[in-house]
Amino acid sequence: MSKSLKPKKVSESKTVMTEMVMPNDTNPMGNLMGGNLLRWMDIASGICAGKHCEKHVVTASVDHVSFQKPIRNGDVVTLEATVTRAFRTSVEVYVEVFANDIKGGNARRCNHAYYTFVGLDDNNGKPVPISPVLPLTEIEQQRFDSAPRRRELRLMLSGRMKPEHSVELKSLFAE
Amino acid sequence: MSKSLKPKKVSESKTVMTEMVMPNDTNPMGNLMGGNLLRWMDIASGICAGKHCEKHVVTASVDHVSFQKPIRNGDVVTLEATVTRAFRTSVEVYVEVFANDIKGGNARRCNHAYYTFVGLDDNNGKPVPISPVLPLTEIEQQRFDSAPRRRELRLMLSGRMKPEHSVELKSLFAE
Amino acid sequence: MSKSLKPKKVSESKTVMTEMVMPNDTNPMGNLMGGNLLRWMDIASGICAGKHCEKHVVTASVDHVSFQKPIRNGDVVTLEATVTRAFRTSVEVYVEVFANDIKGGNARRCNHAYYTFVGLDDNNGKPVPISPVLPLTEIEQQRFDSAPRRRELRLMLSGRMKPEHSVELKSLFAE
Amino acid sequence: MSKSLKPKKVSESKTVMTEMVMPNDTNPMGNLMGGNLLRWMDIASGICAGKHCEKHVVTASVDHVSFQKPIRNGDVVTLEATVTRAFRTSVEVYVEVFANDIKGGNARRCNHAYYTFVGLDDNNGKPVPISPVLPLTEIEQQRFDSAPRRRELRLMLSGRMKPEHSVELKSLFAE
Amino acid sequence: MSKSLKPKKVSESKTVMTEMVMPNDTNPMGNLMGGNLLRWMDIASGICAGKHCEKHVVTASVDHVSFQKPIRNGDVVTLEATVTRAFRTSVEVYVEVFANDIKGGNARRCNHAYYTFVGLDDNNGKPVPISPVLPLTEIEQQRFDSAPRRRELRLMLSGRMKPEHSVELKSLFAE
Amino acid sequence: MSKSLKPKKVSESKTVMTEMVMPNDTNPMGNLMGGNLLRWMDIASGICAGKHCEKHVVTASVDHVSFQKPIRNGDVVTLEATVTRAFRTSVEVYVEVFANDIKGGNARRCNHAYYTFVGLDDNNGKPVPISPVLPLTEIEQQRFDSAPRRRELRLMLSGRMKPEHSVELKSLFAE
Repeated sequence: MSKSLKPKKVSESKTVMTEMVMPNDTNPMGNLMGGNLLRWMDIASGICAGKHCEKHVVTASVDHVSFQKPIRNGDVVTLEATVTRAFRTSVEVYVEVFANDIKGGNARRCNHAYYTFVGLDDNNGKPVPISPVLPLTEIEQQRFDSAPRRRELRLMLSGRMKPEHSVELKSLFAE
Repeated sequence: MSKSLKPKKVSESKTVMTEMVMPNDTNPMGNLMGGNLLRWMDIASGICAGKHCEKHVVTASVDHVSFQKPIRNGDVVTLEATVTRAFRTSVEVYVEVFANDIKGGNARRCNHAYYTFVGLDDNNGKPVPISPVLPLTEIEQQRFDSAPRRRELRLMLSGRMKPEHSVELKSLFAE
Repeated sequence: MSKSLKPKKVSESKTVMTEMVMPNDTNPMGNLMGGNLLRWMDIASGICAGKHCEKHVVTASVDHVSFQKPIRNGDVVTLEATVTRAFRTSVEVYVEVFANDIKGGNARRCNHAYYTFVGLDDNNGKPVPISPVLPLTEIEQQRFDSAPRRRELRLMLSGRMKPEHSVELKSLFAE
Repeated sequence: MSKSLKPKKVSESKTVMTEMVMPNDTNPMGNLMGGNLLRWMDIASGICAGKHCEKHVVTASVDHVSFQKPIRNGDVVTLEATVTRAFRTSVEVYVEVFANDIKGGNARRCNHAYYTFVGLDDNNGKPVPISPVLPLTEIEQQRFDSAPRRRELRLMLSGRMKPEHSVELKSLFAE
Repeated sequence: MSKSLKPKKVSESKTVMTEMVMPNDTNPMGNLMGGNLLRWMDIASGICAGKHCEKHVVTASVDHVSFQKPIRNGDVVTLEATVTRAFRTSVEVYVEVFANDIKGGNARRCNHAYYTFVGLDDNNGKPVPISPVLPLTEIEQQRFDSAPRRRELRLMLSGRMKPEHSVELKSLFAE
Repeated sequence: MSKSLKPKKVSESKTVMTEMVMPNDTNPMGNLMGGNLLRWMDIASGICAGKHCEKHVVTASVDHVSFQKPIRNGDVVTLEATVTRAFRTSVEVYVEVFANDIKGGNARRCNHAYYTFVGLDDNNGKPVPISPVLPLTEIEQQRFDSAPRRRELRLMLSGRMKPEHSVELKSLFAE
């Protein structure tokens, strides 16, 4: 069945989301709380995954996320989500966060993350095979190629693979 | 002072916003309430106006909006806002609404609206002159050209111009 | 079937709604965002339309709305919605907005709008005939009488009537 | 200073608030949660108290509230708040709750409560004397007359008065 | 049927809830609004009641609540809810509120309340008998013993018992 | 200066948060969206970090999070956050998520995560040294001991450490 799934281009499911930071999104110092950004990243990448899979999807994981540059009350946050690679029943999404002030100034790239989603069957709610990703640009190809390494780390971190069985990661530390 | 303002391209402030329709956005029949869509359109076009004006902006008006195609709970709504033309201290924004279901299917253009915003001075909160819009594509030029007619109607509808003083509209009905 | 519908008085469905402006309703300058007011106006007039029609209703349109007087964080906003006239399956609602500060001072009329709603059949979701409006006071009669002109403008603006076919509007510009 | 405060009529600060019950306001069985109704009652009566006092006010207490009739998702809730009597720096507000379904049917009185508020000085945040209430109708006079009994119970329940010092309540149980 | 219900310990259903006060929870002076606290108390005690009853529950009443110490924007509020005593189809919950600032300082006990809940049958939505409460500590026993007095007051205040029929309360005022 | 900071016990800042899953927290299939859980985890662990640091804190990072067991609309989610180890100006928090249905049944451990926070100076907003963590139980000691390994991974993943410079991680893959 998985064989019949035609590869889909990254651009077909690219999702852009814009949010204005409201007072309730910020901590008492007026900075956007990290958890709110994680929630927006999840929604943007989930919409992107749903379009690629043409299925209802659920979040399977989020990889390590760092927060370096503060985002302020009233700032405008733009999130861009694109699929990177599909595994049998899951798809990895790369989401990048940009911010600028309400006047369009102080534009900056804030951070990024990798989320994974599983596509579900409408009737029985079980995972279903999903379309492969067809990378076309150089950066799409790079993210496609590095996806197995991130996946191996995910399996290790969630206890489903032992370090000694890793192939991709082991080579990173080898000398 | 207004003379020193350099025209800006439409693409420089184009704003794309994506929202997933949540249960609280819908009426008891599960359809997105019109007022919630008006609010999203206001935010998307306000962010667009802020980028163009490089100022804090406030909504001055919204023109007639029709709601034809229902949008459902769980649907994904995409709003695209672009400036059409600036008047002395205000700018008109065209915002277009698209929807599709959560699986990316049933994509449809839902409706559109024209919002106007006034740019404000940071210190005294008074309206300030804003940059002209530089239309480049055919559709941008069309919206630029038809803006005075919409503006005349706005002035009439808000009681600031008498029908007999209209130039643009009168000609519509002449014959 | 429409014949059997008894006219209903305006007072039977009049709806008063009061909201306190919260921080998340305001822009970074502390003013109520236009889109939030449009949303409240839609809810107040939708409740009013539901009471008049005794049906589930959906927003069909909102006419031009201007925002002149800023409303501030902490202000109290009062909305009064009344039906003006019913057409076959739709009803027009007039909604007026007042504001005062939290101590009841600085009371002012802010703006108003006309929303239209369509009454839907519970079973098939199709538009159904709705009760006529019975105007009793002078102002109710005025709004009843001017409703066809607003309706003609709506049809023109949504592309369902050509300017040359208008009757009500054409006469406005004639001389 | 309290002497110079002119009595104000109940009607001058009467506040009507209408809310539509949204999915997030309900429990998993689709009934409005009691706490949400308590919150709306607090807002409606607080706005009413603010108008009467012409001050910022804070909630001092709410008396016993019973919930008898369930209110459903999609129902329309109307709250009517009126001042009953002022004590030196506080005012008691009576708030009554009505509900009907979205089509205006099944109208019913749901419950009521007494909230008290303290008026605060803008500069130092301390309680300030507030205007007496002038009861005009029979029901306003009844609520005015019974206010000291409710106040005595409040003082007892918050531990500021001993049962044996009560005058109003003691007589209730005497025989 | 009620006979087969095994008593349950207070600790089995104890519920701790922590909330950070956000801007939208506060009034324009930056204090948590009383109604929001009432809502949080209702949720915390409702979760506690649901655990004890192992049923869906609905709020039946809240007793008198006083608000003495202001809670500020950004403060952390901790609510602790425990069952005190079950009557045939209802259970009384004691909920206590603590606050501290965001740095863990200025810790203080703010207030408390008694809520009652009714357990409902899943199929017909009717009240069902619920498990007795087994008090183990001294304070649990005190709250268990004083519950009938609070219940009698509730019945009186909601008009279901006449003062002269009270037993518990009458003795309070006796001399 | 860091020397003068007295170690603090884990129990001093332990934070328990309880949330009821509301309709707006769920996707169209009725499951809690991953991003909402990430937001709650951020708030619970941020409150915990604030108590430990006695400072305003900001989220610096979240490590890999997996979502295995679905959480449903109406379920009760309990989050327990404890500090594990402090580095010079940051602290790592372990947050564990439990869920049960509204009747207290189907209790299950859902997932967990490690968040890190930076403590900020009130005046200049710069990172400040924070109190060491004093582990007392076996599990507290384990999390304290493994913290440097997680920290090394974080530095690598955020590009601030090269794989070949790692000490802790390299040994994991060694043979």
